[in-house]
Amino acid sequence: MAGKAKRFSLEDIAALDAADPLAPKRQEFAVPKWLIYLDGNSLGMMPLAVKDRVTTVLAEEWGNSLIRAWNSHRWMDLPERVGAKIGTLIGAEENSVIVTDSTSINVAKAVSAGLSLNPDRRVILTDNSNFPTDIYMAQGVADVLGKDHTVKVVAPDDLYEALDDTVAVLMVTQVGYKTGLRQDMQKLTACAHAAGAITVWDLCHSAGAFEVDLAGCHADFAVGCTYKYLNGGPGSPAFIYVAPRHQDAIQPMLTGWIGHQTPFAFDLDYKPAEGIKRLNVGTPPVLALSALDTALDVWDDVSMAAVREKSVALCELFITEVEARCGGFGLDLASPRDAALRGSQISFHCPEGYKVMRALVDNSVVGDFRMPDVIRFGFTPLYVSYEDVFNAAKMLEKILREGLWQNPQYDVKEKVT
Amino acid sequence: MAGKAKRFSLEDIAALDAADPLAPKRQEFAVPKWLIYLDGNSLGMMPLAVKDRVTTVLAEEWGNSLIRAWNSHRWMDLPERVGAKIGTLIGAEENSVIVTDSTSINVAKAVSAGLSLNPDRRVILTDNSNFPTDIYMAQGVADVLGKDHTVKVVAPDDLYEALDDTVAVLMVTQVGYKTGLRQDMQKLTACAHAAGAITVWDLCHSAGAFEVDLAGCHADFAVGCTYKYLNGGPGSPAFIYVAPRHQDAIQPMLTGWIGHQTPFAFDLDYKPAEGIKRLNVGTPPVLALSALDTALDVWDDVSMAAVREKSVALCELFITEVEARCGGFGLDLASPRDAALRGSQISFHCPEGYKVMRALVDNSVVGDFRMPDVIRFGFTPLYVSYEDVFNAAKMLEKILREGLWQNPQYDVKEKVT
Repeated sequence: MAGKAKRFSLEDIAALDAADPLAPKRQEFAVPKWLIYLDGNSLGMMPLAVKDRVTTVLAEEWGNSLIRAWNSHRWMDLPERVGAKIGTLIGAEENSVIVTDSTSINVAKAVSAGLSLNPDRRVILTDNSNFPTDIYMAQGVADVLGKDHTVKVVAPDDLYEALDDTVAVLMVTQVGYKTGLRQDMQKLTACAHAAGAITVWDLCHSAGAFEVDLAGCHADFAVGCTYKYLNGGPGSPAFIYVAPRHQDAIQPMLTGWIGHQTPFAFDLDYKPAEGIKRLNVGTPPVLALSALDTALDVWDDVSMAAVREKSVALCELFITEVEARCGGFGLDLASPRDAALRGSQISFHCPEGYKVMRALVDNSVVGDFRMPDVIRFGFTPLYVSYEDVFNAAKMLEKILREGLWQNPQYDVKEKVT
Repeated sequence: MAGKAKRFSLEDIAALDAADPLAPKRQEFAVPKWLIYLDGNSLGMMPLAVKDRVTTVLAEEWGNSLIRAWNSHRWMDLPERVGAKIGTLIGAEENSVIVTDSTSINVAKAVSAGLSLNPDRRVILTDNSNFPTDIYMAQGVADVLGKDHTVKVVAPDDLYEALDDTVAVLMVTQVGYKTGLRQDMQKLTACAHAAGAITVWDLCHSAGAFEVDLAGCHADFAVGCTYKYLNGGPGSPAFIYVAPRHQDAIQPMLTGWIGHQTPFAFDLDYKPAEGIKRLNVGTPPVLALSALDTALDVWDDVSMAAVREKSVALCELFITEVEARCGGFGLDLASPRDAALRGSQISFHCPEGYKVMRALVDNSVVGDFRMPDVIRFGFTPLYVSYEDVFNAAKMLEKILREGLWQNPQYDVKEKVT
């Protein structure tokens, strides 16, 4: 544990919440009573407006307009329309983001496209803090290409050094899912380009968590999910970004009819659509895209700088209180101590972490456990209050001090509903 | 036009509807007033129960249980659970169907897996009545493999002859989207196997339209969408079938974390899950899967033999009445005249077909136009009545006889709501 930071009083917490410019946003979400939800980095809360939108899509669009809604309700361009909303949150150029498929599928698209732009090189470089599906998908692409591509996995700190002239694609998740370690997109992209590599950024734990500037960083490709900080709902479709300079140069690996130049000409030959649209594949998932479309409206009046400022404050509060309260129980901060090196989550190595997290959930504080011993807490400034975080630290202390984790009373998944 | 078939009287029609054992099913769907909907082969009508299910998923599961719902509401096994329901409709063995991704993506999975089972051959054989995305995806797979695979496209009648010892994979859509021509799955699969080829069947226009017997036909792979005859909603996720004998032999092309043996171990190496689960890729789309799950319940008390019987009767009625009423206007049956060679749709070549279909839609009869001159009508026995079909033929006659197609009054997509 680190040295003593200034502790917070109940009055401090009340003052922080009272002064929080984002506090009113919480009313736009379905917030279950009594629940302290520090897992918005796994599944974001539901924006209340989503329910009306989905009801309308069911009753009026699908139910009543039926096939005609593809035009009358503009279902066909949902991937681009919703993508544009996300684009503004991640610093993307116009017409450079669409929402389609899953993050995993989009990783395959981005990596294969990146490799095609770097045909003389054979290495996909990534790090061992990356979420496994990215590595699996990249390995799958490497295998299927059958050209001796390899996925090279190094420690996060060794990425810079590993950027040599064999690297075709650097594939990095900006914020690691386990510790929240955040890579410097500007610097790493510049180094990758200096080494002749193409970058694929996974923004699953970035989009909606802090300011991202894809255009300013000259990023090449990016992907990300929409069900964490973007609150699109369980398994909502993912996004993919392609820098405008690459869009018309890439031949998609997954060549589906919605990515065709003229889908309704029903040509037998595939001709890629212009620009980002060629990354579309199958028929757009209208219901999920509509829910996400509305979920993204909560960002309309939100400053991402304010989100980041509150995120850092919530994280600092949590570290301070947990370390002060739980010092004797073997917890060890797994996240970087420097806020500039973190996303919007805090993880601790914790002995018996699985059981401790189970006890927390039993007591209405929801975070995640990640193997082998990490308890993980996500801080989503649109609906998490300072009081939530303060009380979460208090509950963690209680569980450790009273040994509540040794005898859980309920099934972890069922109690708090 | 063909010779004179026996015409139908209003009394005949009333008697047919009165005796229809499927007639009560219509009450389970959201049927817009005044609409004659002969486009369920593009987008099926909404089963009314879907709305309640989706509302529950939003309010209780996502809204209230949040991340805990992955276990407490069994979100994680939705792909298999919903797949099992579809499996019973298409004659699949247990544990051989999952619902995941789009039809296009699943074509890539099936074709690539099929090729891997036939490594010494290089041809993907298909026909020019196939829906274009299947051909695009197969070509994309062939290109990406970089081993001189080619997609050979022949006329539907020439498939048998083209099955030579170069064919690795035969990829056929059982019912062609344009004319409704239906291939004999039993015979073509047997011929493919005799020639040493692996089969990939696209069941988009089969599943829910008539009896399919994948196991009985010894089919190898199958894919299909769920938003046509299965009424899953716009862009609902697709299914993929892999014969049990192949499941553990295939190495997926798209290797995502949900297809991993132990997703939550977060291994850095991909190990495919056992059986059909390895065809999963990304996080399951819970909202859409839940809607589909409930949509499939309308089949619980339905005999597919009764569906087929009514489908044939509706189609015969339509052909008879259209040919008798519209004989002088140059219509020409594009679908096979023999019901055994058709799916559940009827298409006509029609001069000025685009405008004629627009006038039909203006007048509350919804079908499809397909380039260059095809007007297409789908017959979905769960919610289409004999009276609907009779009145659709009458309206087509009126539009042709009075030349209404020459001066459409409304935008085709907007009027009937």
